[in-house]
Amino acid sequence: MSLKFNLLNTTDAGGRRGQMHLPHQTVETPVFMPVGTAGSVKAVPQDVVESLGAQVILGNTYHLYLRPGHESIQRLGGLHRFISWPRAMLTDSGGFQVYSLTQLRKVTDEGVRFRSHLDGSLHFFTPEYSMDVQIALGADICMAFDECTEYPADRARAEESLRLTMAWAQRSLDYFRAHRHEVPWLKDPRSPNEGDQGHPMTEGRTQSLFGIVQGGMYLDLRRQSAERLVEMDFDGYAIGGLSVGEPRELTLEVISEVLPLLPESKPRYVMGVGYPDEIEQYARMGVDMMDCVLPTRAARHGLLFTSEGRVNIKNRRYAEDQGPADPACDCMVCRRYSRAYLRHLMQSSEPLGATLNTIHNLAYYLGIMRRVRADLAAGANMPEPVRP
Amino acid sequence: MSLKFNLLNTTDAGGRRGQMHLPHQTVETPVFMPVGTAGSVKAVPQDVVESLGAQVILGNTYHLYLRPGHESIQRLGGLHRFISWPRAMLTDSGGFQVYSLTQLRKVTDEGVRFRSHLDGSLHFFTPEYSMDVQIALGADICMAFDECTEYPADRARAEESLRLTMAWAQRSLDYFRAHRHEVPWLKDPRSPNEGDQGHPMTEGRTQSLFGIVQGGMYLDLRRQSAERLVEMDFDGYAIGGLSVGEPRELTLEVISEVLPLLPESKPRYVMGVGYPDEIEQYARMGVDMMDCVLPTRAARHGLLFTSEGRVNIKNRRYAEDQGPADPACDCMVCRRYSRAYLRHLMQSSEPLGATLNTIHNLAYYLGIMRRVRADLAAGANMPEPVRP
Repeated sequence: MSLKFNLLNTTDAGGRRGQMHLPHQTVETPVFMPVGTAGSVKAVPQDVVESLGAQVILGNTYHLYLRPGHESIQRLGGLHRFISWPRAMLTDSGGFQVYSLTQLRKVTDEGVRFRSHLDGSLHFFTPEYSMDVQIALGADICMAFDECTEYPADRARAEESLRLTMAWAQRSLDYFRAHRHEVPWLKDPRSPNEGDQGHPMTEGRTQSLFGIVQGGMYLDLRRQSAERLVEMDFDGYAIGGLSVGEPRELTLEVISEVLPLLPESKPRYVMGVGYPDEIEQYARMGVDMMDCVLPTRAARHGLLFTSEGRVNIKNRRYAEDQGPADPACDCMVCRRYSRAYLRHLMQSSEPLGATLNTIHNLAYYLGIMRRVRADLAAGANMPEPVRP
Repeated sequence: MSLKFNLLNTTDAGGRRGQMHLPHQTVETPVFMPVGTAGSVKAVPQDVVESLGAQVILGNTYHLYLRPGHESIQRLGGLHRFISWPRAMLTDSGGFQVYSLTQLRKVTDEGVRFRSHLDGSLHFFTPEYSMDVQIALGADICMAFDECTEYPADRARAEESLRLTMAWAQRSLDYFRAHRHEVPWLKDPRSPNEGDQGHPMTEGRTQSLFGIVQGGMYLDLRRQSAERLVEMDFDGYAIGGLSVGEPRELTLEVISEVLPLLPESKPRYVMGVGYPDEIEQYARMGVDMMDCVLPTRAARHGLLFTSEGRVNIKNRRYAEDQGPADPACDCMVCRRYSRAYLRHLMQSSEPLGATLNTIHNLAYYLGIMRRVRADLAAGANMPEPVRP
């Protein structure tokens, strides 16, 4: 069986606190998922990611497929074992990277032909193949293979893209259901109970597959997409194709339109957002899962998110600032290091700069979700009965 | 008063185990000192460097003088506070980097004029100025300003270089004695006891200054250098100008020649060595302190030191190797990560690769010294009385 999702509290505003039982972790939602593109949350050792309280991290199917290769990871026991991450993982479908990173790609009903951004080699992804790769990687949650509509896109383009994404969703689901028993850890005698907290990983606790609502910025297409995916009965639902350059009001409009169409009993995931105030807003609206490269990528460029706003730590004004990055933060970086030192590390291109900045930003993002969960638990209504 | 050095055990082979009481740490010798060039042991957070058991780390005066500047570090309370390192530190004199990194340098009896390798700006270092900079940085141990003779050097060049180094040693010492009370932490009310283990940092526990034996590969010049420095009465003695390209037999010959000329009651430091078997050999011969960029620099290029020899982790043969970097090692990297993963991180240019490789290599180097100290403690003769 796939994931089990329990709602613990709901609010009038639509916010909800829940628990998502996955093979490697019971995840408290709403949850922010740090991105570990190529099998590493960039610049941060796994034990630190754990100590920050990350419950689930992402891996990018496209990157891991190209290097070291999903078959290699499969032989090594799956992604959890390969990178030594005992908690939950989610892999995307590879679709977004194929569209954003590769050149000379050719999309047909069958799939997408593209050239690797690493060496120009030719590859062909279909929904079935994306499932094969994701099953080999073995994340707790896989994503259906979709086409991410660019922004802006005219209606004809959005319709055509959606047609493809819906057909691919069905093919992803069919193939996934037929093959998910092939996940490398399901019968791996080395794996039982590894990293799982109170939910032993037994046979039958398998990977889950989420469908992805697309449709560009056309609300009727989004509705159509959501309704058809719900009919297909995925284990959870994502809203994709956001944070692609559209104004934030539009992002919010799409999320507000789609959320009520998704079944209450299943987790809802908004992909690729966002700034700290965005993830808080969406979490209070009823989004259960979010991921974004922003806290990690910005950190490597010296941008810190703090309770006092954004801090560009490279700024000269911090050269002799003995205060912590964020006076309200008690993360291991803010407890130990000064802004002056963090600035020096960036000015000197010391690799420790990226590490410490990333640790702080992740602590800040994960702290937001912890606070939202506590608020939902404290001030929330009791959950209504959920239809199975 | 400066450092206090107690010998605990000595062996017939000349090996010795001791304790060096410094303002910020009682250092168990023989000791290997990781290099933290610009205020960071590259790619490793300070708490990890601590957990590995590093007792004293190096800072490079040249780099810190250029960026962020010693006056800035002084205003921030000194190097310990700036980088948040509570244990002991040692700074070099800046001399070696001036010779190895800069261009257009001009050496006179007065000092060295050089251009920054960062921006080409003009600077002038004298022995007195090197002391000023090192006192502002505030490491537990400072080094006399010397000229490091290149290898090979003819006798006339080595003699002239030694003449300069001996004159600069006396000027370094005179200036240091007159100014060491200016160290930023001596009267800093925030500092007392910080990081010190059992030896509260009180007034009077000041920085120490080591002289550096030079003389190229000419043993009589080395003898002359050692004897004159001992007359000057430094707090400890270093052997410099080694590991500059000479064959290892020559390195050993110089060390063997110089060690017996140095007072038993003071610490002996061989600068810039070496490979794992070298640091073990020298430690068993009676060298108390060593430093080298090798474990950290090699790590960043994927070269691991292990009980099974050197491992180039980028080698294809490790692509699916599930074993740890070193089966005999219990460091946090070998306990958690496989060779396959470490290789993947290097292949993917993931910053975590440098971090994990460095942690392992440092664990390996520090482990060698721990083992040598245990051997000296177990099988060693009692120390002979030491003249004050």
